[in-house]
Amino acid sequence: MVPDSIGWSLDPQLERDSVAAGDLALCQIRLMNDANYPWLLLVPRRRNVSEITDLTDADQAQLMREIAQAGRALKAETACDKINVAAIGNVVAQLHVHVVARFRNDAAWPKPVWGRLPARGYEKEAIDRLLTTLHRRLANAPA
Amino acid sequence: MVPDSIGWSLDPQLERDSVAAGDLALCQIRLMNDANYPWLLLVPRRRNVSEITDLTDADQAQLMREIAQAGRALKAETACDKINVAAIGNVVAQLHVHVVARFRNDAAWPKPVWGRLPARGYEKEAIDRLLTTLHRRLANAPA
Repeated sequence: MVPDSIGWSLDPQLERDSVAAGDLALCQIRLMNDANYPWLLLVPRRRNVSEITDLTDADQAQLMREIAQAGRALKAETACDKINVAAIGNVVAQLHVHVVARFRNDAAWPKPVWGRLPARGYEKEAIDRLLTTLHRRLANAPA
Repeated sequence: MVPDSIGWSLDPQLERDSVAAGDLALCQIRLMNDANYPWLLLVPRRRNVSEITDLTDADQAQLMREIAQAGRALKAETACDKINVAAIGNVVAQLHVHVVARFRNDAAWPKPVWGRLPARGYEKEAIDRLLTTLHRRLANAPA
């Protein structure tokens, strides 16, 4: 059987803005290179998918499980006040789901993060540390 | 068996900002009273739920089905260019999922809608017409 992910490739803008943080069954998990907020992207490894409803029912169900998994990992990692989840895609058409850890004292609170502040790149040590712990939390979480 | 929805009530701010558009198995569907964009809210009828991960696994799966159902109904109704989906909840804690029809020529495109423009209330005839057709589309859609 040919895997559904054959021929899939990551959108170049998503690739520039974020770094790989691991693969779950459906999605590539990426960490946005923006130290303003701990911010994951979940990108289903499926070709030509822009809307959630472009996924099969089984993939939609798996996407929800991975959104929950990413949210739990991020909350455990950061002890944030709120998780924000969104699939917007008005600029980058490739389906990607934002899972963002928000704090009552973050720079954009209580507004959503999109289009609010310029990205502030991580220091190399900080992003390496965050990737290591996130990767472990995602790997150990129930799918 | 006591239904899980016993004791649930809609957050007062969500009630002020939107009108009921029908009930699905899990969520009350509401139409935001904002003619800038056709904009639904899905509010799970569950008490004390703020994050998606506060729902049971079964309710999470049902929420995804209802997000897809609402997105398909909205797309069929409006022929929009993109559906935006988000669970933010930094201001209103009660879990509510936004499903918004976006157009390349709408007033906020390509930015997200939250905190962008003041709500522009519908004319009574327009909202009644939209509610009637949305209600029919949601009732006839596969769950």
